Amino acid sequence: MEEQVEMVGRAFADHYYNLFDHDRNALVPLYQPASMLTFEGQKILGVDEISAKLSQLPFDQCRHVISTVDSQPSALAGGVVVVVSGSLQLHGEDHPLRFSQMFHLIPTEQGSYFVQNDIFRLNYSVPNPSPGRQATTRSHRGNSSSSSSTADGFGTGTPCP
Amino acid sequence: MEEQVEMVGRAFADHYYNLFDHDRNALVPLYQPASMLTFEGQKILGVDEISAKLSQLPFDQCRHVISTVDSQPSALAGGVVVVVSGSLQLHGEDHPLRFSQMFHLIPTEQGSYFVQNDIFRLNYSVPNPSPGRQATTRSHRGNSSSSSSTADGFGTGTPCP
Repeated sequence: MEEQVEMVGRAFADHYYNLFDHDRNALVPLYQPASMLTFEGQKILGVDEISAKLSQLPFDQCRHVISTVDSQPSALAGGVVVVVSGSLQLHGEDHPLRFSQMFHLIPTEQGSYFVQNDIFRLNYSVPNPSPGRQATTRSHRGNSSSSSSTADGFGTGTPCP
Repeated sequence: MEEQVEMVGRAFADHYYNLFDHDRNALVPLYQPASMLTFEGQKILGVDEISAKLSQLPFDQCRHVISTVDSQPSALAGGVVVVVSGSLQLHGEDHPLRFSQMFHLIPTEQGSYFVQNDIFRLNYSVPNPSPGRQATTRSHRGNSSSSSSTADGFGTGTPCP
């Protein structure tokens, strides 16, 4: 059971990012009308809207490299939650961007899975006192969409005395 | 509905990290016997084992700062999936560590939620050609548990021609 969940998560991640990098339109059948994608804080509901979002992303060529895949059985019979971390190299950019993406996979009657929940975030570096690293961090922020951690209202952090 | 899901996710994240930073044992009632935690690749099943893991973490004092909280309704009635990104400042360490954590919250009969799925990962920087940044990245890796992305067998990345 445990091994099967790991295999599903890993196989899904390999499949998903291979399609994303080489034939992005082929991702669309992985979603269904009730699927939800949150992309850098922007919520997108349903396969048609998700398809439109994927085709409108402001980069044509990219390459995902997976660092980690963590999978668990979900509370829904046969479902699997998968969290992937990795890096995303955009064509023409010097530095890869770190990302995390969570999927909730639900089994279909055909013996496959569809994506019920999909949450994608770029992981920005923490600024430190080194001017070189701060400059890099700012450059990465500049490449992001307008739905940054500040824009979505969650950028101020938990008050921790 | 949408706003309520966002409120649940944000309130849960504030509550969870406040307890983690100030009274870690108080996190235990958030888990149930079927709960699963994956901490840096290590899978831990059930409230007793999760409680033991939390109390054995190799740092006593820490401070989480939330950067982003993304929440969606899950396929399970009333459930909420929450993905948090942020930074973790350990006592005595110069630099905060970036983290991502995913929770699948399931409603209880008492009108609250418990954590069914919990997946935690530190997000390491992508090494770049600057010697100074590489050294920082290696130092962060040295602080992590033995269940690194290499140790769990997922460190080689997707083959992308």
